[in-house]
Amino acid sequence: MTTLLVLDADPLPRLGRLTGRVRIEHADASTLAERLPYADVLLVWDFTSHAVRRAWPGEGPRPRWVHTASAGVDHLMCPELAASDTVVTNARGIFDQPIAEYVAALVLALAKDLPRTWDLQRRREWRHRESRRLAGTRACVVGSGPIGRAIAEKLKALGVMTALVGRTPRAGVHGPEDLDRLMARADWVVSAAPLTEATRGMFDARRFGTMQPSACFVNVGRGQLVVEDALAEALSKRWIAGAALDVFEHEPLGPDSPLWEVPGLIVSPHMSGDTVGWRDELGAQFVELYERWEAGKPLLNVVDKKRGYVPGH
Amino acid sequence: MTTLLVLDADPLPRLGRLTGRVRIEHADASTLAERLPYADVLLVWDFTSHAVRRAWPGEGPRPRWVHTASAGVDHLMCPELAASDTVVTNARGIFDQPIAEYVAALVLALAKDLPRTWDLQRRREWRHRESRRLAGTRACVVGSGPIGRAIAEKLKALGVMTALVGRTPRAGVHGPEDLDRLMARADWVVSAAPLTEATRGMFDARRFGTMQPSACFVNVGRGQLVVEDALAEALSKRWIAGAALDVFEHEPLGPDSPLWEVPGLIVSPHMSGDTVGWRDELGAQFVELYERWEAGKPLLNVVDKKRGYVPGH
Repeated sequence: MTTLLVLDADPLPRLGRLTGRVRIEHADASTLAERLPYADVLLVWDFTSHAVRRAWPGEGPRPRWVHTASAGVDHLMCPELAASDTVVTNARGIFDQPIAEYVAALVLALAKDLPRTWDLQRRREWRHRESRRLAGTRACVVGSGPIGRAIAEKLKALGVMTALVGRTPRAGVHGPEDLDRLMARADWVVSAAPLTEATRGMFDARRFGTMQPSACFVNVGRGQLVVEDALAEALSKRWIAGAALDVFEHEPLGPDSPLWEVPGLIVSPHMSGDTVGWRDELGAQFVELYERWEAGKPLLNVVDKKRGYVPGH
Repeated sequence: MTTLLVLDADPLPRLGRLTGRVRIEHADASTLAERLPYADVLLVWDFTSHAVRRAWPGEGPRPRWVHTASAGVDHLMCPELAASDTVVTNARGIFDQPIAEYVAALVLALAKDLPRTWDLQRRREWRHRESRRLAGTRACVVGSGPIGRAIAEKLKALGVMTALVGRTPRAGVHGPEDLDRLMARADWVVSAAPLTEATRGMFDARRFGTMQPSACFVNVGRGQLVVEDALAEALSKRWIAGAALDVFEHEPLGPDSPLWEVPGLIVSPHMSGDTVGWRDELGAQFVELYERWEAGKPLLNVVDKKRGYVPGH
């Protein structure tokens, strides 16, 4: 019988469907290394854990398939896994629409000055302001996978002229060489790129310096895409008008982080993709993939381990 | 030469274009009654002032045309004006898209739990929550004029199944007899109706009682459409999950109003339609209407004074 090793504190629902067909074992960060040689399949769903990256390089056989119930794979990739025959799959598709809606919510909140509205409400102050019209503004969405594309579609539905930037230029997608130019004229720059060696720290002081003073920055990709100190400086010095971060270099953000109080910055706790029912959907998606694997059919959502994401259309 | 009487503290831009063609005089609430008999045209733009309603019933001739640079006409209508030959026009069209975007911002903020995110940020607390997916939810938009229709279009663009309710049932518009049923199954009830004797206080305890406990209420019409105490009670007792008011029975809302602190209520200062450049647009619209009037062409945006709004398609 196949051994499915689940790395988690908080088990995914829907795995009950596999009862009797698979031996499900659980591991945590401290036991993963010793269990890895005995697992056929590894299911990971804590995207904040680096346990796989730490345990993988050890001795012994390794699972033939690793599935992560997340869109990003940065938390588990290591050279030894990349070089191995093990197939890595991700949760492609589950988070697209929720994250696109979340970005729309943040962009509209920034356009309509809602953070200040909340602040004034708390102080019982009636202060009328003019806000921005969203339709007709320009966005630059960085990341051309399904999440970036869903964000671009959502913003277009709201009348925003949206350019998409990816690693490889193709129809409807600009290449990295266009990024500075597109950022310079965007009202909204949205980061939804995978975290790879090519994208780490890509939003730095120089790039924030290219943005318009009226523009805002939103990150729903990975915290390490952004040089956080540079963003804080850009906001404090009013190089840009506002920002929203849902992801951070270190998560959870500690109570002593200066980011909580950077002026014009909205801080949310990595929740953009997590709408009611998301864990059910992740569980159901894994069961569907498992049944393909069991039947000898090709897996879906297979990650290009060298690039660090599922190559797209 | 035509005398244009402008009732305002804060003059509208763009009237300079009429220089030399019209005598522009200004009045405030205290001088309006004595000036009315000498004015051919009255331009009103302070929707919070009831000066016209108070001054109109007096003696003497009256302007042949009254334009209000607002969508609602409730602040100026009185039986004597309704019965007169004076034509009343409004700012139909200017506020549609801005208000539709503002409603989308509020609905998304409620769906994505942004008010709580702000609150937690202020307390430097990282607390992950699941939020709601907007696509696939149901909205009931009350008010089938251009603003209500623009709101419905915007919500539909976000994947929300949206029903529109107006005074007269027609293609794509439900009549008042469907309101209770539509409110009972809506996730979002949006009030964008004109204030008339038929709509005053229409959102009362009984109607909030028909809503689902997970549903939210948004008012961008006029404050008097809502029984504010009933809404506060519905929120406090969790009959409904959240609400946002941009308009109030008494504006500006005083610092001692209990509404500022009703749980789950977003309070904003009547700003939904006021995007950067709105006063220019209102001024330009009046100039365009003035030039039609001067040329003897029929005016646009003519209010049905008995109904209290511009009859639509």
